[in-house]
Amino acid sequence: MKKYVWILFMIFCFLGCSSQSSSPSSSPVLVIHGGAGYITPERFNAGEDSAYHQALSVALRTGYDILENGGSALDAVEAAIRTMEQSPLFNAGIGSVLTSAGKVECDASIMWGENLNAGAVASVSHFLHPISGARLVMEKSPHVLLIGEGAEKFLKSQGMSLIPNDSLITPKRRQQWLKSRKPSAAAASLTDYKFGTVGAVALDKQGHLAAGTSTGGMMNKLPGRVGDSPIIGAGTYADDRTCAISATGHGEFFIRYAVAHSISDLMMYQHLFLREAADQIIHRTLKPIKADGGIIGVDKNGNITMTFNTPGMFRGFIKEKDNPQTFLYGDQK
Amino acid sequence: MKKYVWILFMIFCFLGCSSQSSSPSSSPVLVIHGGAGYITPERFNAGEDSAYHQALSVALRTGYDILENGGSALDAVEAAIRTMEQSPLFNAGIGSVLTSAGKVECDASIMWGENLNAGAVASVSHFLHPISGARLVMEKSPHVLLIGEGAEKFLKSQGMSLIPNDSLITPKRRQQWLKSRKPSAAAASLTDYKFGTVGAVALDKQGHLAAGTSTGGMMNKLPGRVGDSPIIGAGTYADDRTCAISATGHGEFFIRYAVAHSISDLMMYQHLFLREAADQIIHRTLKPIKADGGIIGVDKNGNITMTFNTPGMFRGFIKEKDNPQTFLYGDQK
Repeated sequence: MKKYVWILFMIFCFLGCSSQSSSPSSSPVLVIHGGAGYITPERFNAGEDSAYHQALSVALRTGYDILENGGSALDAVEAAIRTMEQSPLFNAGIGSVLTSAGKVECDASIMWGENLNAGAVASVSHFLHPISGARLVMEKSPHVLLIGEGAEKFLKSQGMSLIPNDSLITPKRRQQWLKSRKPSAAAASLTDYKFGTVGAVALDKQGHLAAGTSTGGMMNKLPGRVGDSPIIGAGTYADDRTCAISATGHGEFFIRYAVAHSISDLMMYQHLFLREAADQIIHRTLKPIKADGGIIGVDKNGNITMTFNTPGMFRGFIKEKDNPQTFLYGDQK
Repeated sequence: MKKYVWILFMIFCFLGCSSQSSSPSSSPVLVIHGGAGYITPERFNAGEDSAYHQALSVALRTGYDILENGGSALDAVEAAIRTMEQSPLFNAGIGSVLTSAGKVECDASIMWGENLNAGAVASVSHFLHPISGARLVMEKSPHVLLIGEGAEKFLKSQGMSLIPNDSLITPKRRQQWLKSRKPSAAAASLTDYKFGTVGAVALDKQGHLAAGTSTGGMMNKLPGRVGDSPIIGAGTYADDRTCAISATGHGEFFIRYAVAHSISDLMMYQHLFLREAADQIIHRTLKPIKADGGIIGVDKNGNITMTFNTPGMFRGFIKEKDNPQTFLYGDQK
């Protein structure tokens, strides 16, 4: 009898050792957002509603395919965001809102949790995919943030095609902009569109986290205004030890409160769970000062959060081979 | 006898109450830096050495006069930085290093610890005092960060004079730039000048903290490259509950590690002292990954730190009506 116990003990030891020495294999997770704001059922007809669900699902499937095939969280985040930049429904890439000068100026950033590498572009006006520009800055330059014409020149040298600014402007956005220029409508219009941003966060099979954010900014913003989206620590942060975060909201507050980095620090230093950390910043720090917006996040264990203090947030997630789960309004879980 | 004791007791009570009901009066403190890097005694002759000490003293006295007269930490920080922007010795305002295109592009930011208000400008090329531009963005626009021509247009509308870019370029900087363009010298020259930045942090009599940072960036940087100086949370942070920080160093690392905000969070969430928090980031987080640089800081109680992992940092402080204390090299305390 003793002999069998001994053999069993040896088998347990062997299994223990081998499971420790094998490479970690996480169950991949992808979470996305398409902006937070005054998104309520009354504002969307059935066709619009389903168009948003469909666009979010496309982004989720595109990114998740990469994760399922063993691709990196960085690739998944970039791919998911590219589909939203390409969709006229979201305020990023095609469909970006216009500055007070009637032009599109885009910002984007991306971050890799394994080594805290990061890249960002701000005030670029000639790219369909600013998120890919941010990734090129990260991988092909010694810099983190390149802006304006300098950024465009660098990205052109890296093979990105410059396209006319006009080709990023949709008829709907031009109409909204013209309407917003009428003094009486300006305030209402700003309320409608000020939080348009897209973002994605992912955990890959290797256990690495990545985050990315892309936006056209605020309708009628001053040319040269930069919000939180291209600011590492404000709109985007990823650290394998804690979480990956992408934010959408009133960018000026998100910069001042270093929102994405604060959530990471609350997990690191106060040992809060992702959801607790996110709720502390979004609901208990930002809401009382009327700093509207939300975040999506995923932690190293695959836990997710999609929290916001606005009436709604375009959002969704996909994990464990399930279908994409997508949501628009506040009361949906 | 009992009567006298009673009267004395009443007097003590009165003094106690009146001192509690008066507004708090802190002993003001100002700390500044003029950049960290390969600053060693061998590299400076006696004349240069004393010129740096003098320039730092002027900045300290200018800012401290404001604090002593009851002015705000914000005013003191701005005034101290303006004197360094005006000095050709430092890489900010006049005396900024040149981009690879042979032009000056300046970045600056400022933050007010009472309400976390902040302002910043990046890639502006026509101002002697970018720090005042950052303050105007904070106080006269709804935004935190304005960049490039958009920023210049806004600041012009606020009464700031635009000056020719050439007038910010000193003969010495042009010479350094020309030298650095020769391939063999490029690496050495970048080593010399990459951490040039100026900054100030202050505690005022009302107990409020402020921080500011201004720079010409990295010698030979790509046009449009933005470092940590104008990034709230990276190069600059101020929160009355914790500390005010201004950083100088290899900006890309300082952005990725959200250096200024990390120090504030270590105080807030791990209850570290300012000096412990700063040392943890500069020496234990950044030094092992060769992320060179330093920070200055002051906390709500007037404790200060000036810590760096480079051979030297132009720096100094003034408090309690003492003379300014200024230092250049690593072994000076």
